[in-house]
Amino acid sequence: MAKKKIIVIGGGFGGVFAAKSLEKLGRGTLDVELVNNNNYFVFQPLLPEVAASSINSADAVVPLRQLLSNVQVRQARVMGIDFAKKTVIVMQGARMTPVELKYDELVMALGTGVDLNRIPGMADHALTMKDLTDAHRLRTHVIGCLETADVTTEAEVKQQLLTFIVAGAGFSGVETAAEVRQLVSRALRYYPNIKPDEIRMYLIEYADRILPTFPADLAEYATTQLRSQGIDVLTGVGTKSATSTGVELTDGRKINSSTIVATIGNGPHPLVSMLGLDMQWGRIKTDRFMRVPGQEHVWALGDAALIPLVDNPQEDPVDYATQTAQFAVREGHQLAGNIFAKLNGKELKPFAYESKGSLASLGMSKAVADVYGIKLSGTFAWLLWRGFYLSFLPGIAAKFRVGMNWILNSIMPPNIVQLRMPPPATRYIHFWKGDKVFEPGMLIDGFYTVINGSFKLTIDNPDTGEHFEKVFGPGEHFGERVLVKSELRTGLVEALEDGLLLFIAQKDFTRFATAFPFLDNYFKEYIEKTFGGADKAFAPGSTNQRKQLAKTR
Amino acid sequence: MAKKKIIVIGGGFGGVFAAKSLEKLGRGTLDVELVNNNNYFVFQPLLPEVAASSINSADAVVPLRQLLSNVQVRQARVMGIDFAKKTVIVMQGARMTPVELKYDELVMALGTGVDLNRIPGMADHALTMKDLTDAHRLRTHVIGCLETADVTTEAEVKQQLLTFIVAGAGFSGVETAAEVRQLVSRALRYYPNIKPDEIRMYLIEYADRILPTFPADLAEYATTQLRSQGIDVLTGVGTKSATSTGVELTDGRKINSSTIVATIGNGPHPLVSMLGLDMQWGRIKTDRFMRVPGQEHVWALGDAALIPLVDNPQEDPVDYATQTAQFAVREGHQLAGNIFAKLNGKELKPFAYESKGSLASLGMSKAVADVYGIKLSGTFAWLLWRGFYLSFLPGIAAKFRVGMNWILNSIMPPNIVQLRMPPPATRYIHFWKGDKVFEPGMLIDGFYTVINGSFKLTIDNPDTGEHFEKVFGPGEHFGERVLVKSELRTGLVEALEDGLLLFIAQKDFTRFATAFPFLDNYFKEYIEKTFGGADKAFAPGSTNQRKQLAKTR
Ligand SMILES: Cc1cc2nc3c(=O)[nH]c(=O)nc-3n(C[C@H](O)[C@H](O)[C@H](O)COP(=O)(O)OP(=O)(O)OC[C@H]3O[C@@H](n4cnc5c(N)ncnc54)[C@H](O)[C@@H]3O)c2cc1C
Ligand SMILES: Cc1cc2nc3c(=O)[nH]c(=O)nc-3n(C[C@H](O)[C@H](O)[C@H](O)COP(=O)(O)OP(=O)(O)OC[C@H]3O[C@@H](n4cnc5c(N)ncnc54)[C@H](O)[C@@H]3O)c2cc1C
Repeated sequence: MAKKKIIVIGGGFGGVFAAKSLEKLGRGTLDVELVNNNNYFVFQPLLPEVAASSINSADAVVPLRQLLSNVQVRQARVMGIDFAKKTVIVMQGARMTPVELKYDELVMALGTGVDLNRIPGMADHALTMKDLTDAHRLRTHVIGCLETADVTTEAEVKQQLLTFIVAGAGFSGVETAAEVRQLVSRALRYYPNIKPDEIRMYLIEYADRILPTFPADLAEYATTQLRSQGIDVLTGVGTKSATSTGVELTDGRKINSSTIVATIGNGPHPLVSMLGLDMQWGRIKTDRFMRVPGQEHVWALGDAALIPLVDNPQEDPVDYATQTAQFAVREGHQLAGNIFAKLNGKELKPFAYESKGSLASLGMSKAVADVYGIKLSGTFAWLLWRGFYLSFLPGIAAKFRVGMNWILNSIMPPNIVQLRMPPPATRYIHFWKGDKVFEPGMLIDGFYTVINGSFKLTIDNPDTGEHFEKVFGPGEHFGERVLVKSELRTGLVEALEDGLLLFIAQKDFTRFATAFPFLDNYFKEYIEKTFGGADKAFAPGSTNQRKQLAKTR
Repeated sequence: MAKKKIIVIGGGFGGVFAAKSLEKLGRGTLDVELVNNNNYFVFQPLLPEVAASSINSADAVVPLRQLLSNVQVRQARVMGIDFAKKTVIVMQGARMTPVELKYDELVMALGTGVDLNRIPGMADHALTMKDLTDAHRLRTHVIGCLETADVTTEAEVKQQLLTFIVAGAGFSGVETAAEVRQLVSRALRYYPNIKPDEIRMYLIEYADRILPTFPADLAEYATTQLRSQGIDVLTGVGTKSATSTGVELTDGRKINSSTIVATIGNGPHPLVSMLGLDMQWGRIKTDRFMRVPGQEHVWALGDAALIPLVDNPQEDPVDYATQTAQFAVREGHQLAGNIFAKLNGKELKPFAYESKGSLASLGMSKAVADVYGIKLSGTFAWLLWRGFYLSFLPGIAAKFRVGMNWILNSIMPPNIVQLRMPPPATRYIHFWKGDKVFEPGMLIDGFYTVINGSFKLTIDNPDTGEHFEKVFGPGEHFGERVLVKSELRTGLVEALEDGLLLFIAQKDFTRFATAFPFLDNYFKEYIEKTFGGADKAFAPGSTNQRKQLAKTR
């Protein structure tokens, strides 16, 4: 008899534990394949510690191939599912070639997506905390802020660099704020020009208290604890908009900051929401056996699925499995059992599980825990937190590595190595009215087009008294001189109203424009027409200006 | 009395040890500042091990601030030096603002640059091994090749993915080849669809033997050792050109490969060569005291400097300090002594040092060593190699971390986590005549413009028999439909002669073109004119084609 092919899409908690159990139960009779866009499993509860550099990036994840022996692991991106033909369409390889995979049973475990579009500017300016790259990027960014703050001479810039905002105070927001705070505190001794009281950190929660899934007294303990570490906990207020220089709150306040972390905005996985399945609260509805109604061979679990815990669930989250790693793992085991039962004509079991409790780390060797109904807080809760996650982490190698990281981190100085990632070539940048886009003396690093709003360029030549002004609206552009010469900015550009620019980095813009004769001509003519030639274009800023503006300490 | 300001530019072996000694000698009388573009010191001898994932990326480097207490560390890029005004111009911060730093004495320790432009295609397609990002990128790339090779069904693609080329067999080339070979061998057990004999690895050296700085018999031992590990050592032959699909050798052979590592092409540091200093072999000439002639307050050391070891040096490298870490460290100490002597009216000492010897690791717990004239090879040499570098690594924390990495790596499975970096938005891609740019069925991932050569697009519709052909030359472009629709490629593009394309990734191209009304119009008109409208443009490829082409295993 041909082996039945089970495809699991998504290699997070749900997918991995489902695949593992399936392989064990079905050894010899099932052919299990897991598809994931990375070749590793991310232990999400440790991401805040990666961001705080308590743990090496590579140590908070486990290679899927090592975790899942006897399961075929495919590093590929799922692009679509054809339920009628029972195939999954994936893109794989460096050249992204499409491949169709046939299944007999399909397990969907793609998790959720992040949707920050409801808050203007958030998607372009906030860092998220969903996967390893996010955590790594946050760490790099925070250390970069300290590096620059240590050497800048402008008070305003320094304050912005030393203000950190975390939006959302569920447990990932709380843990991220606490961990980043701790990294900054520990690192400060290496930044002699930053005083501890120059650091600002805000944790912003729209609900009227933090940690909504915890009992109120633990949340209160946590709030006190976070405040004593110098974190400003703001509840009952949300973020209204974000720009490159800060956030605006729903109460009208503006906080200048170079760092916005969003742990809010959990939304449906973009692919999942396109499949035409019956969804609620952004999750795929399943029956109590984790089958997707109407799709005979399809199952769903984890954060992506809405699994009822009772027979007649009400419109109330408590009647459904919660979106936690704990639940996903249990679901994985049981879903495997159900698939096996189905294929062998046995009876399926409805999903039932009671949470063992919740834990949240607060940094500084403190935590809150609500375990088997017992409420704990402080250092003991924190040790419990560590022990629990260590035991939970799959694979001995991973446990050992994380354990070693913890030990090293407690006896060694904090790791402030800044492993930078190349910045994106194009990015949208939001501005509030009055914000400066650039000032004379800055390095010309790219080109801007106006998407909306209006921006004013002013060039003053102190030597000759010449003055030049121009306003740019949607579809217009500035900074094209980068094509002709890489020099310092001679003009000042300010937003006349709230607006949005597209920035294109110098290297990429130059490559594009020069590869393309008609574009190259367009810009040459434009410079001629607007500034009266390339030479003229650079005249207004005197060479002395550069020297005035270069700030020495 | 005001403290004298000493600025050290470059935080490698030379700069760090000079700064450290200066701070010690001059405590209280000197104000020492070190400028480096990263906030960490790179222990270059360990880079091949990072590439092989024996060592975590962050553990092969040491934060400069932790290494250099009492030295002001500035993370900034040196952009220029004004010797007359005794200032260094640096760019710092996220916005790259220029700052001028005044010095009393300047120490130049910027190392060397890499110049691959002499070999067509090399600069665009080869990975280098100079800094941490390089090593990290190589590791990610190699694991990516294994991931794709494991799931691809095309024999040709698979072979290309499993062929690895290292150009240059000095010690960094030899160590890189050996370490990458070891990573691949150890990782293979996790890739069930790759057989060990499918792996090809070439080490290519233009000279007639590898390791030119070692005695001939040790080089011979190393060659045998590398060959026994399955590395094809080719001597007396160089790389003539490189493309995205492989290299062409000087003897006319072509080797298809997705991985080319270049450890050749050491050239002058780009900034250093612009300063108008007296240079030879790409290095700054100094006197025996490491002073730069004609510049009263400027000193140079390390790879960037050409320091004579004798009073009347001949046109012969043996009369000068060699470009190794060992020498740079010694130079650093002595240069500090000389600056201190100068400022205190004492006598300067000429630089003199005799190499303690050379060591090169060959992987598989083997190495060659030539220490104090004693030649060693095999496991004992390898242990010596490890011990030596551990002792050499600055800082207890770093020693401990690297030591732990080595222990973990020997008892744990290899770390095959692929931490991907975002691919660049624009890149130049070289093609040989006959190479395919893309084929029907591939995901449309970007836009191409022709820089030189000519490329032919062919679209065949098997349903209707329709046939479309077009040849593109310099300045022309294809793939613009990505603007209208993200779909699968329906055509085949091949190079009619050797040529060069500029690729722009879909997201960035779309952002750029749509932000810009005149560009958007240009492309819409172009599609209309060339294909008779957007709809027509997609017609030629039948929907069935996609299914035929999607390869299932
Ligand atoms: C910062 C943070 C801290 C947390 N802390 C805790 C905690 O302390 N305790 C707790 O119980 N829970 C915690 N959680 C929640 C917990 O991590 C999730 O509930 C759990 O990961 C859900 O598992 P899942 O398998 O459903 O989804 P995920 O773990 O999100 O896995 C989804 C997988 O699908 C892959 N994928 C997505 N799209 C595609 C595609 N198109 N193609 C291929 N692969 C794809 C993803 O790469 C991922 O591997 C935390 C979450 C976060 C973000
Ligand atoms: C892969 C590899 C393996 C090696 N193995 C060995 C070995 O086993 N034994 C041995 O003795 N030697 C070895 N070497 C050689 C050794 O590493 C060099 O000789 C040594 O690093 C030279 O030191 P340096 O200070 O002159 O330059 P570097 O160490 O290259 O330092 C230059 C510094 O300047 C910084 N910099 C450059 N430009 C700027 C700028 N514009 N602004 C600010 N900062 C800038 C760089 O970031 C860098 O930190 C190896 C080299 C490589 C690449």
